[in-house]
Amino acid sequence: MSQASHPILLTPGPLTTSDRTRAAMLRDWGSWDSDFNQITARIRQQVLRIVHGEGTHECVPLQGSGTFSVEAAIGTVVPRGGHVLVPNNGAYCQRIARICKVLGRELTTIDYTEDRQVSAADVDRALAADPTITHVALVHCETGTGVLNPLREIALVVARHGRGLIVDAMSSFGALEIDARKTPFDAVVAASGKCLEGVPGMGFVIVRRSTLEKCEGNSHSLAMDLHDQWVYMGKTTQWRFTPPTHVVAALDEAITQYFEEGGLEARGGRYARNCDALISGLAALGFRTYLDAAIQAPIIVTFHAPDDPKYDFKTFYQEVKKRGYILYPGKLTQVETFRVGCMGHFGEAGIPGAVAAVAETLKAMGIRQVSAAALA
Amino acid sequence: MSQASHPILLTPGPLTTSDRTRAAMLRDWGSWDSDFNQITARIRQQVLRIVHGEGTHECVPLQGSGTFSVEAAIGTVVPRGGHVLVPNNGAYCQRIARICKVLGRELTTIDYTEDRQVSAADVDRALAADPTITHVALVHCETGTGVLNPLREIALVVARHGRGLIVDAMSSFGALEIDARKTPFDAVVAASGKCLEGVPGMGFVIVRRSTLEKCEGNSHSLAMDLHDQWVYMGKTTQWRFTPPTHVVAALDEAITQYFEEGGLEARGGRYARNCDALISGLAALGFRTYLDAAIQAPIIVTFHAPDDPKYDFKTFYQEVKKRGYILYPGKLTQVETFRVGCMGHFGEAGIPGAVAAVAETLKAMGIRQVSAAALA
Ligand SMILES: Cc1ncc(COP(=O)(O)O)c(C=O)c1O
Ligand SMILES: Cc1ncc(COP(=O)(O)O)c(C=O)c1O
Repeated sequence: MSQASHPILLTPGPLTTSDRTRAAMLRDWGSWDSDFNQITARIRQQVLRIVHGEGTHECVPLQGSGTFSVEAAIGTVVPRGGHVLVPNNGAYCQRIARICKVLGRELTTIDYTEDRQVSAADVDRALAADPTITHVALVHCETGTGVLNPLREIALVVARHGRGLIVDAMSSFGALEIDARKTPFDAVVAASGKCLEGVPGMGFVIVRRSTLEKCEGNSHSLAMDLHDQWVYMGKTTQWRFTPPTHVVAALDEAITQYFEEGGLEARGGRYARNCDALISGLAALGFRTYLDAAIQAPIIVTFHAPDDPKYDFKTFYQEVKKRGYILYPGKLTQVETFRVGCMGHFGEAGIPGAVAAVAETLKAMGIRQVSAAALA
Repeated sequence: MSQASHPILLTPGPLTTSDRTRAAMLRDWGSWDSDFNQITARIRQQVLRIVHGEGTHECVPLQGSGTFSVEAAIGTVVPRGGHVLVPNNGAYCQRIARICKVLGRELTTIDYTEDRQVSAADVDRALAADPTITHVALVHCETGTGVLNPLREIALVVARHGRGLIVDAMSSFGALEIDARKTPFDAVVAASGKCLEGVPGMGFVIVRRSTLEKCEGNSHSLAMDLHDQWVYMGKTTQWRFTPPTHVVAALDEAITQYFEEGGLEARGGRYARNCDALISGLAALGFRTYLDAAIQAPIIVTFHAPDDPKYDFKTFYQEVKKRGYILYPGKLTQVETFRVGCMGHFGEAGIPGAVAAVAETLKAMGIRQVSAAALA
């Protein structure tokens, strides 16, 4: 039952992890025990190191998927009377907007089509026009399409206006630079099972300490109260509620490998090489990317579906899977697309292998015309 | 790095799991893939089978620790204008009360000392006296001490009054009988890492279908909205947000072993034997249980700490751990205690081994008097 015989995941997560990372789950840990709590402490420290937030920020881990941490960040950092601006260019931006509505935080959006980057100038104008906006919630890499939003520019605008910034960096954290010394933010949210290449099951929020200190009583939820989690962890070294011990141990092991590989530069570089190889490989088969290269993050790529009546995603997916690779459906409503992730622990042969699998699949499905009509 | 060289966990969870259960985590799964979603479907089905809730109830899994599922159940099942009665005889009852406060659900408690069982007659009186109470939230086994509350009696009282019942069965589910055909309930909450002997990282709520159908829009949270999770899962077979795939796969494998062992009767029987061996073994060393035998659940046992100036919990814990067993601190504020769990995958030698480790520890710490003063 080795991983080698299973397909490589080219998705936005869960990802293919390393054997070492998975092997770290072969042991049970007591959640009260100091051996385990040293692991928690180490993860919190290393995560801060990745963003250069030691001394200024706190890393608060949270059980659940990434969305739980996003909701926890909004609920904890934005006071009940707060007002959130969401620049919206995709599905994960819309999810934040939905969270604001459910939590009863006032919401304003700036709406873009999904093939566009968020613009710092628009955020600037919106903040100037409405002084009641207390926070901006930005998605760094909008995984719904793969657009990279200009985090640093927007962060500087938000800081200039004296508002708070919450960043959903789920799919970028650890691969694309976020430097707390240069990019002011109140909260950055990410999770175990993305670019750090752990397994899914926990998220974490990096919060500016001076912000976090003022967040007592904001949260709409007990389980998702990051202030309470932080205070308790500070006092006891433990999680407030049972941690997903095996997931935590796997993340610790994954972070060790992250630094062994060379940290952010190496990880980001590897994904960028994957992304280039993927785009050029599929282009040679006639596939076109949905986004302009200038705004494409090296994380996940949206491709137009073949413009051929013989194409349907389900068959395409199954045929590629048979050949050892798991792709991802598109998330767009207007255009038929599919997505391919660039993240995860697979060797340099991974992307060429996937391209070959797609080529064979096209042949097997009898698809000749990949993009001719689309070019017309 | 085998588990064999690590201590056995005699705690209320995370528990010692089997090698087979942990080995199920050695593979990565795509969360969109049908291979994985078949696992989710199987777990949901088997959980319903354990409570005989097929046809009447739905199992809605949720990411996060058990508390997330408890909060999700309160938030989803109790409407915003609802009123919750919490019979309170311990720490986990108090946690439910706290959740009600944070969520803004009206709250009434019936307070007991921690060495007492909740009484169905008290619940009956409280419901008769206050018709605005819409729901009762009961902890089945109050893990803070180990008291077993009379679930079935209370469920019948609540049903007779036509109110809703939410049961926190975190530490009892799968070991102590909960039969939906005989015990009416709206929601029963449990988690992966307790008596089913999976690893921690997800919970689940078994909700009466006719109740769940009416829960749209109740939830204070997006991530913890069980109605939304249920509807989405019904439509897509997928979790709404990234599932903890490895934890899910481990739970599936753990449930297979649960039925191989003989299901509830066998699991509960094994824990009861562990509990008897533990209590008699420690009694022979002079330890007294905090609870009367009549109200002791065969899940976790609270013992009075040795009444000897040489005793301190930290040293005691470390010494027992050195000998291969991890105990748990007490949760009582008035009396000094420690707790020992009866759950988890360890052989028949586990409890006698733990008793021997405690005996050696007493010797090493120079503790002679375990209970003499307490008996006085
Ligand atoms: C940008 C972004 N935000 C949020 C999420 C949600 O994370 P999860 O599915 O773990 O809840 C994702 C997941 O891919 C994401 O890419
Ligand atoms: C009765 C009861 N309720 C709730 C919980 C909370 O579960 P978790 O720590 O997984 O959040 C526990 C944990 O032991 C429990 O025993």
